[in-house]
Amino acid sequence: MSKPRPISGFPEWLPPQRMIEQYVIDRLRRTFELYGFAPLETRAVEPLDQLLRKGETSKEVYLLRRLQADPDAQTGDDALGLHFDLTVPFARYVLENAGKLQFPFRRYQIQKVWRGERPQEGRYREFLQADIDIVDRDELAPHHEAELPLIIGDALASLPIPPVRIQVNNRKVCEGFYRGIGLTDPDAALRAIDRLDRFGPQRVAELLMSTAGASESQAKACLSLAEISAPDASIDDAVRGLGVEHPLLDEGLAELVAVLQTAAAHSPGLCVADLRIARGLDYYTGTVYETQLQGYERFGSICSGGRYDDLASAGADRFPGVGISIGVSRLLGLLFGADALSISRPVPTCVLVALPAESDRPAGNRVADTLRRRGIATEVSPSAAKFGKQIRYAQRRGIPYVWFLGVDGEPDGVKDIRSGDQVSAQAGSWQPAAADLLPTVSDQPAPAAGRPPENLDNMPR
Amino acid sequence: MSKPRPISGFPEWLPPQRMIEQYVIDRLRRTFELYGFAPLETRAVEPLDQLLRKGETSKEVYLLRRLQADPDAQTGDDALGLHFDLTVPFARYVLENAGKLQFPFRRYQIQKVWRGERPQEGRYREFLQADIDIVDRDELAPHHEAELPLIIGDALASLPIPPVRIQVNNRKVCEGFYRGIGLTDPDAALRAIDRLDRFGPQRVAELLMSTAGASESQAKACLSLAEISAPDASIDDAVRGLGVEHPLLDEGLAELVAVLQTAAAHSPGLCVADLRIARGLDYYTGTVYETQLQGYERFGSICSGGRYDDLASAGADRFPGVGISIGVSRLLGLLFGADALSISRPVPTCVLVALPAESDRPAGNRVADTLRRRGIATEVSPSAAKFGKQIRYAQRRGIPYVWFLGVDGEPDGVKDIRSGDQVSAQAGSWQPAAADLLPTVSDQPAPAAGRPPENLDNMPR
Repeated sequence: MSKPRPISGFPEWLPPQRMIEQYVIDRLRRTFELYGFAPLETRAVEPLDQLLRKGETSKEVYLLRRLQADPDAQTGDDALGLHFDLTVPFARYVLENAGKLQFPFRRYQIQKVWRGERPQEGRYREFLQADIDIVDRDELAPHHEAELPLIIGDALASLPIPPVRIQVNNRKVCEGFYRGIGLTDPDAALRAIDRLDRFGPQRVAELLMSTAGASESQAKACLSLAEISAPDASIDDAVRGLGVEHPLLDEGLAELVAVLQTAAAHSPGLCVADLRIARGLDYYTGTVYETQLQGYERFGSICSGGRYDDLASAGADRFPGVGISIGVSRLLGLLFGADALSISRPVPTCVLVALPAESDRPAGNRVADTLRRRGIATEVSPSAAKFGKQIRYAQRRGIPYVWFLGVDGEPDGVKDIRSGDQVSAQAGSWQPAAADLLPTVSDQPAPAAGRPPENLDNMPR
Repeated sequence: MSKPRPISGFPEWLPPQRMIEQYVIDRLRRTFELYGFAPLETRAVEPLDQLLRKGETSKEVYLLRRLQADPDAQTGDDALGLHFDLTVPFARYVLENAGKLQFPFRRYQIQKVWRGERPQEGRYREFLQADIDIVDRDELAPHHEAELPLIIGDALASLPIPPVRIQVNNRKVCEGFYRGIGLTDPDAALRAIDRLDRFGPQRVAELLMSTAGASESQAKACLSLAEISAPDASIDDAVRGLGVEHPLLDEGLAELVAVLQTAAAHSPGLCVADLRIARGLDYYTGTVYETQLQGYERFGSICSGGRYDDLASAGADRFPGVGISIGVSRLLGLLFGADALSISRPVPTCVLVALPAESDRPAGNRVADTLRRRGIATEVSPSAAKFGKQIRYAQRRGIPYVWFLGVDGEPDGVKDIRSGDQVSAQAGSWQPAAADLLPTVSDQPAPAAGRPPENLDNMPR
């Protein structure tokens, strides 16, 4: 076969990048579990009618077809498509399994999703998302909307990435305000405001007039609301200063202030209310979140979500929820591109056991076994080449220690190949430096490869 | 919408099952990393021509099509399909990234795969596999074939499952033997032998004659070889007792004995040579592995693989490898079905902070923060209902401790709700029993729900 090529939009990491991704996933999981979220996975596929419930995303869906199947057999209602997010499958899962779940139900879900979009920087066709959601039966207490930013704040603070700022808004504030000024299609107004970053105020004003039935002064009022931003309860005064009144506006503002106050008590500076945040998807009904990486604001939001009251409902059963989703592939792709993440070595291995001869492999395996049983990741050299070559095997992988089997009753020795220091050692008791046990991830660029020590082939035992 | 239903062949676990699966994945990862394997993931899709290289599996492939795309545009060479295993994508990844990898390259990969097969017990259309592979450039030393069973043995021994037996064979033994008795199409003979379990010796003898050009006595000889099984070097005598000679047979027997001896030094009883093990896929060229769960032999192999010399090669580049794949979904599905795995609670939460009133939520959050920072998974009660109701929230989830905020300067208290014992406690120093910190997985059925304590609503603080 010819040499294969990458497929646009389907990123694959090299081993050190994948190790960083795995580290990030483990850190996120740890925080989510400390907050009591249980892990969950849903299947990769959903019936097409489920995926199209939101209407607008149909163009993004990948449909499945069995190679040998009758092409006509799988385009009807039974057609299966790959999920494009984790919220729609989770809402379906809750409805399907409601009788077996305890509510409120807290789950995290870290999985790939697929969208047939045009690939571009930080936008992929296959990517990893890490979601948390809380759903309850019938009613969901608003304090959960205030809790989510704490969890996301802690989760992201546990990573070697720049600090974040979570921008919050509340759909009720927008809808109440729009209704208060006399607009009758608040969803259309919200969709126009959602394009403010891309289109600018002039074009959005025109959109408000052409799609949401706004007069020029109503459009201006909508834009004034979108300009408001505050880190604390002063948001209430700022909105009320616009002189609009509506019960839904009152409700939304109270919820928004509660989110800000809860966040400020936990992590000052983490959350800011920003009333231009709309989130394009139609299913949000309360608080909405976006998240900027400080210094990388041009990348857009790396973590978004909100409250949805009607996504999981069937007949009389209703499961309102609130959730937020970290774009793991997006975040890592951008930081890898900026050379802003590195790992101390691209293998888990801490010790390489060198072999004087292939016939020493059983003895090497015994040492390796003993070290592994003590939690020290160990490889036995793949060949009994000259020691210099075996040491270079370790060096090229950043393995910090090489173990030498003792001959003629002498004790074994272990060499730190960075310093060249060698000590006598027993596999049952020797301990590497704590910082060397596992690879470490940092927010610094990977160092240039160091100059190898000289005369490796003649190194003393 | 109406209540959604499961899709046949696409299993989804309930939260406690998913927690067990996550535990199993973490244990496998731990062992793989202790042996120096780096994590890797490949994209879910491969070009169709890659997937069809092996010929026989075309019927199993799911093709992708964008909903809005021209149907004709995606049926040619550019068509993408979901991968049906992790070996073919890994071979492609190695070829694509060879210049950036260090050889021999050791990687593990734990991902979903998809096959459009008819679903049945333990056979899914979407399932999780955990693979390890070692590939080298140009040549791969045979000791790697002996190393893999050790890793798999350790990995499976770390799980709360019955002991396993790994059955090994070597393609060279079969091919050398078949050639030694004068057969010219050893692949056809191997495919016939591969059906021995399903078809029985009579029909396989007929197959050998009709598809592999065997005479009746040649077919008999093939069946005699397939009957041989031994846990140690005596396999050599048993095969030679059939009186067949061929250089490839000698080579294969030497490799097979080395695998058995290495395994016996590490884990007596783990490996047995079983010369009926053929593995249907054509790409194996040396050692092949299957794995039986003791007491569940009727389930078939839960972990299979082998050596492949020609899977990753393009032009003059050749990367022989050896790998083995644990069928995680298959294993768990069968054990869940047998009620042979359980977890102590279906949430990570160790402590529930009870709230006397909703206005105490900020104080509850502070306690929870302090506990979480000390690694103790904590939830704050979702409502300030009567304490009995809050305790039942914990009970239903198996959360072992409920934390009570002190009032009027009294210290906080924490109650073990299983025993009813309550002690004074400070969030900065209190420690749960070590066994309660994390949920524990066992190979016993889940206990029936215990009788709840009486008079919960009137429990003293």
